[in-house]
Amino acid sequence: MAYLKRSFNPGRQEYQELLKRNIQNKREVAQDVRNILDAVRNEGDSSLFRFSRQFDKAELSSLAVNLQELSEAESLVDASLKQALHTAYDHIYAFHAEQIGHGEQLEVAKGIELSRMIVPIQRVGLYIPGGTAPLFSTVLMLGIPALVAKCPSVVLCTPPAKDGSIHPAILYAAKLCNITEIYKVGGAQAIAAMGYGTQTIKAVDKIFGPGNQYVTEAKIQISSECCAIDMPAGPSEVMVVASMDADPSFVASDLLSQAEHGTDSQAMLIVHSDQEQGFAYLDRVEQELEKQLENLPRKSFLLQSLAGSRAIVASSLPTCVQLVNAYGPEHLIINLSEEEDELFASKVVNAGSIFIGPYSCESAGDYASGTNHTLPTNGWARSYSGVSTDSYCKKITVQKLSKEGLKNLSGTLFCMAESEALMAHYNAVAVRLGGER
Amino acid sequence: MAYLKRSFNPGRQEYQELLKRNIQNKREVAQDVRNILDAVRNEGDSSLFRFSRQFDKAELSSLAVNLQELSEAESLVDASLKQALHTAYDHIYAFHAEQIGHGEQLEVAKGIELSRMIVPIQRVGLYIPGGTAPLFSTVLMLGIPALVAKCPSVVLCTPPAKDGSIHPAILYAAKLCNITEIYKVGGAQAIAAMGYGTQTIKAVDKIFGPGNQYVTEAKIQISSECCAIDMPAGPSEVMVVASMDADPSFVASDLLSQAEHGTDSQAMLIVHSDQEQGFAYLDRVEQELEKQLENLPRKSFLLQSLAGSRAIVASSLPTCVQLVNAYGPEHLIINLSEEEDELFASKVVNAGSIFIGPYSCESAGDYASGTNHTLPTNGWARSYSGVSTDSYCKKITVQKLSKEGLKNLSGTLFCMAESEALMAHYNAVAVRLGGER
Repeated sequence: MAYLKRSFNPGRQEYQELLKRNIQNKREVAQDVRNILDAVRNEGDSSLFRFSRQFDKAELSSLAVNLQELSEAESLVDASLKQALHTAYDHIYAFHAEQIGHGEQLEVAKGIELSRMIVPIQRVGLYIPGGTAPLFSTVLMLGIPALVAKCPSVVLCTPPAKDGSIHPAILYAAKLCNITEIYKVGGAQAIAAMGYGTQTIKAVDKIFGPGNQYVTEAKIQISSECCAIDMPAGPSEVMVVASMDADPSFVASDLLSQAEHGTDSQAMLIVHSDQEQGFAYLDRVEQELEKQLENLPRKSFLLQSLAGSRAIVASSLPTCVQLVNAYGPEHLIINLSEEEDELFASKVVNAGSIFIGPYSCESAGDYASGTNHTLPTNGWARSYSGVSTDSYCKKITVQKLSKEGLKNLSGTLFCMAESEALMAHYNAVAVRLGGER
Repeated sequence: MAYLKRSFNPGRQEYQELLKRNIQNKREVAQDVRNILDAVRNEGDSSLFRFSRQFDKAELSSLAVNLQELSEAESLVDASLKQALHTAYDHIYAFHAEQIGHGEQLEVAKGIELSRMIVPIQRVGLYIPGGTAPLFSTVLMLGIPALVAKCPSVVLCTPPAKDGSIHPAILYAAKLCNITEIYKVGGAQAIAAMGYGTQTIKAVDKIFGPGNQYVTEAKIQISSECCAIDMPAGPSEVMVVASMDADPSFVASDLLSQAEHGTDSQAMLIVHSDQEQGFAYLDRVEQELEKQLENLPRKSFLLQSLAGSRAIVASSLPTCVQLVNAYGPEHLIINLSEEEDELFASKVVNAGSIFIGPYSCESAGDYASGTNHTLPTNGWARSYSGVSTDSYCKKITVQKLSKEGLKNLSGTLFCMAESEALMAHYNAVAVRLGGER
């Protein structure tokens, strides 16, 4: 049986169909989300308790996680997981600290001083989805850059379990990031609460974090009203570029680890080879998929995800580069050869994050190498970067002109203002220079 | 007569009402815009010719500006305006060149190399509005950072005049920025053409530029579908912070130059003073407004804009800072004193661009000092920066792990993957290390 649909040296006109994502139609959820947003805006906290009853099946006594829950979490997390979280924290912190920007300063002409001032966003909201597994890694990925950027106020929302609790590993990871304002609110209602504010939850300036299609739609709707978001999100995806020398078991494991994220995840494989050898190589990858699937839990889930996967054999490296840049993958794994990997990477213009060489598996970046795992999906890598320290900062331009600086510039300003027919702009310069034009 | 509504030392609970913007309800235009977007997506070029007939009253023979029009423009622009454009170009280029980022590199642990690669967005679309005056300054503000960032493909859309022409100063400014792909398309249909692509206009990755409420709504709608935008836009605004020592004629000229941008523009004045002296100072500003208005064209237009303006006297500098940060002005002019101006600026966390001291009028930044005039409005300065070279670049993270690097990290990865119940993530590490766990 073949898991991956195959093609060879596709023409440009085939790219669109071949590189299509598994996207569900989101229009269906738009109205549901609109109703939730409106309810939270109009009713505030009481709607949050109601939605928690409805969606989380939880009867909450308080929205906020209290100090006792926070301190209990510390004793409930295994020592080995604590150690792992600390290692991940250290790497993520170190890389995001390297990203701290420094404002430029320039005297562009005598008496005209320009600069940029880097300022943290004052209040940020982090959303951590619920579901089968506690996504403590996402807490680190969103919380650490907020800490590095020195955002003065950080709030975290995540849905409660039926018993009204939050997984201790989530709380422990939050504590590592100095986050103590945590609310038991999930779904579109969490986005609404952080975007509009309620009696308990003060509105934030920007919302970060992944989520299901309701959360995503809520983020998109609120981003056009009053609150910025990190990026539009879609299902996760990987593109693996392999040569005949790449170990098929490594390639298969990468496709499967992507497929594990969700049934709408997409795993794409590009093999650099002629057709005959390339298809023979794909047979070996298929055998490895078969073998590894046997040893993995949730096989039926993984099979469902793999259904959207594709394998393309391309006989030239420039075609492989074209395919990568046309797809714009969230994760790109390059496994060609020691010599070719970095050269290939240097030609990539559309990707969220690049993993170079046989030992750079996506899991490393997902958890603990130090790069951020919140990345643009669904082709947004054409225009968006992944979350970084930059995402938590603004740059404010500053200018200071001396009288001499303004005088020297006045001829230019008068001419441009007159030509754009903006005479009050002209006047603002003229009154300052009196008769000195 | 008083142009500015006055208040003194407002309480926190009054801020929302006092600092309210003059925003029109955009919901009315949403459906009109949706129809235009759909028409362009479904019909392509033919809808653009039709909309040009309908909205611009122009019968176009071709959407693209041809080489002859470009070369004619050169001879139609005054020598003095050319000189002004060159000066503005030089300053804007110099400041935006300072903003070029440099990717970080870090070996976060032995065998774990992390970096960021800075890559220009491959195809960007610039929108230049039509209207009474040719906004050639905006061409420079959007075109120069694209040039600095080395975006390989840049397209400009702007509505034609009734005779099908584009103002030569627009074309000349575009030429300075090496932009030759220019289309005679305006309004929401221009945003749709750049976002979806048509037979003639290839889709872009990100759209920049100001516009009326149709353009703004089109940008918002398309940004949730397929194409990034610079930022949500609203009416322009200024906040002037003045002490009793600030020349009232300067202050009045700043309020008027802001009022000139549109009838929904907002000019806000904060005076640092006690009530009695502060209100007396406001009287002097009012006299100056009266006087300067007499000498300006479009007085009735300016009066309409000033109707949304307000003046607040605050007796403490911390209150002045609070008011600024609560409003988050697009433009902030600080005119307190030589000693206090920079200290005050250092406490500002929400603003688009700051103008320090008596000779830094907004006109300077609007045209030619070198800072960008495309700035966040309507409170978006809480989370957005103005357009800069950064806006035209992406940062792609890259990681390279050696076998040793992965081995050292494996304990952490195994533990986190198990705890998040993602066993294929676990497996991707395990297969690479064979029996070496």
